[in-house]
Amino acid sequence: VTPGGDRRLVGLVPLATVLAAAPGARVAEVMDPDPPVVAPGLSQERGAWKAARHGESSLAVVDADGRFRGLVPPSRLLTVLLAEHDEDLARLGGFLSSTASARHAMDEPLLARLWHRLPWLLVGLLGSAVAAVLVRGFEADLEADVRLASFIPGIVYMADAVGTQTEALVIRGLSVGVPVRRVVRLEALTGVVVGLSLAAVALPVVGLVMGSWPLALTVALSLLAACTVASVVAMTLPWAMSAAGRDPAFGSGPLATVLQDLLSLVIYFAVAAAVMM
Amino acid sequence: VTPGGDRRLVGLVPLATVLAAAPGARVAEVMDPDPPVVAPGLSQERGAWKAARHGESSLAVVDADGRFRGLVPPSRLLTVLLAEHDEDLARLGGFLSSTASARHAMDEPLLARLWHRLPWLLVGLLGSAVAAVLVRGFEADLEADVRLASFIPGIVYMADAVGTQTEALVIRGLSVGVPVRRVVRLEALTGVVVGLSLAAVALPVVGLVMGSWPLALTVALSLLAACTVASVVAMTLPWAMSAAGRDPAFGSGPLATVLQDLLSLVIYFAVAAAVMM
Repeated sequence: VTPGGDRRLVGLVPLATVLAAAPGARVAEVMDPDPPVVAPGLSQERGAWKAARHGESSLAVVDADGRFRGLVPPSRLLTVLLAEHDEDLARLGGFLSSTASARHAMDEPLLARLWHRLPWLLVGLLGSAVAAVLVRGFEADLEADVRLASFIPGIVYMADAVGTQTEALVIRGLSVGVPVRRVVRLEALTGVVVGLSLAAVALPVVGLVMGSWPLALTVALSLLAACTVASVVAMTLPWAMSAAGRDPAFGSGPLATVLQDLLSLVIYFAVAAAVMM
Repeated sequence: VTPGGDRRLVGLVPLATVLAAAPGARVAEVMDPDPPVVAPGLSQERGAWKAARHGESSLAVVDADGRFRGLVPPSRLLTVLLAEHDEDLARLGGFLSSTASARHAMDEPLLARLWHRLPWLLVGLLGSAVAAVLVRGFEADLEADVRLASFIPGIVYMADAVGTQTEALVIRGLSVGVPVRRVVRLEALTGVVVGLSLAAVALPVVGLVMGSWPLALTVALSLLAACTVASVVAMTLPWAMSAAGRDPAFGSGPLATVLQDLLSLVIYFAVAAAVMM
């Protein structure tokens, strides 16, 4: 590490390279003149990612004035990456964030397990109660054609699946520093085209098997609308969490799923009311 | 790094420690006599995890006879951890495994996006068709009491949520080397107690709001059964993938969810038939 006279960073050179260099070689000849550099405020995960992409195993911290502030050693970067990985999975699973470490979570006694899991599950149960009230509101439609019930699990599942794909992409992108706005249009378009593809498969199959073209049209249009909405919601929630200074992975997991499920149900019954009644 | 005369590893000492040691100090005094050591066949993720837990930034590879075979440098360990993190999220999201890198996936054109996502979605669509046929099989029950339809989204959602928590734990545990059998009983018990807790909340609420105690009992018993089954399935699938030599994260994601949804529906209608008819 070579800070200049005013403590500016001019390059980074690992000890091993110094020792392996030809006698008489100058530091400037063997150093990496463009080392991975981060500001003190950058999230630790982005920092670790930057170092890895440079093929460098440590990370120089440089403040806004370009002054060298310190070096993050490789062993610390490894610990950071493992912890972030555990954390992402814990959030997707709907654990309280305190269960960050995988080995720790595996060995927890029963009461700690319940304590870390029940809170989000009770939120989910509340969401399920709202879903039940919502379906009850469409009881008249269901009584008119009970076959509508057959497609509730499918529509809800497919929108979740499409949303989860977008979430995985956006959460990973945000944590390594790719801004959401760079992919918003392309992801939304992907949602529409995925919805169209699924609708195109569902329309003839449902029509022929169920023998009802209004029902088939309802299912196909709901798939299109729910998948499009799902890909937009899946970008909005992690982005909102990130903008609020929280881990974007909070914008996935059980809360996002239950919100998405409620939206899918509303879409399905609204389309059914429009097409079939 | 100090391999002995027969190329046995006796300890690990970073260059920086050598240079910082007192003049005249012996290598044996400054080295780490119990460095992180892995066999050549170990998965790269487990290796990286082991190094990080030792607070060491590189990893010695030693074969079955105790001979030193090489050293994995810190920059390589960082790259491995980032790739594994991307891979886990891609699998949970239901991407084809070729989209391993986050930055790469963010920048893909529309056709590549579709190509990487549609295969698993079409499998999900097939699962949704099976779900529709399943619900149709219980059309008589639904016509007898259309309020049964109200709880389909909730039962399916809650079992998924419980299963996802167990999956997150098991997948992370497997990838860092904790065997599933160590947690099987405790996780299954957790599933039962979580199911009991949710059932205990649902029973009075559904009974009072819907004014039907058989319906409330159906919902409560289904929650209990579906959550218990979900936690067992969530351990079985990643374990089976791991035993078959695949990434345990394949045992989560869209396929696991659709299987779990079908099981939940069967449980719900079986309980309904037993309690209400």
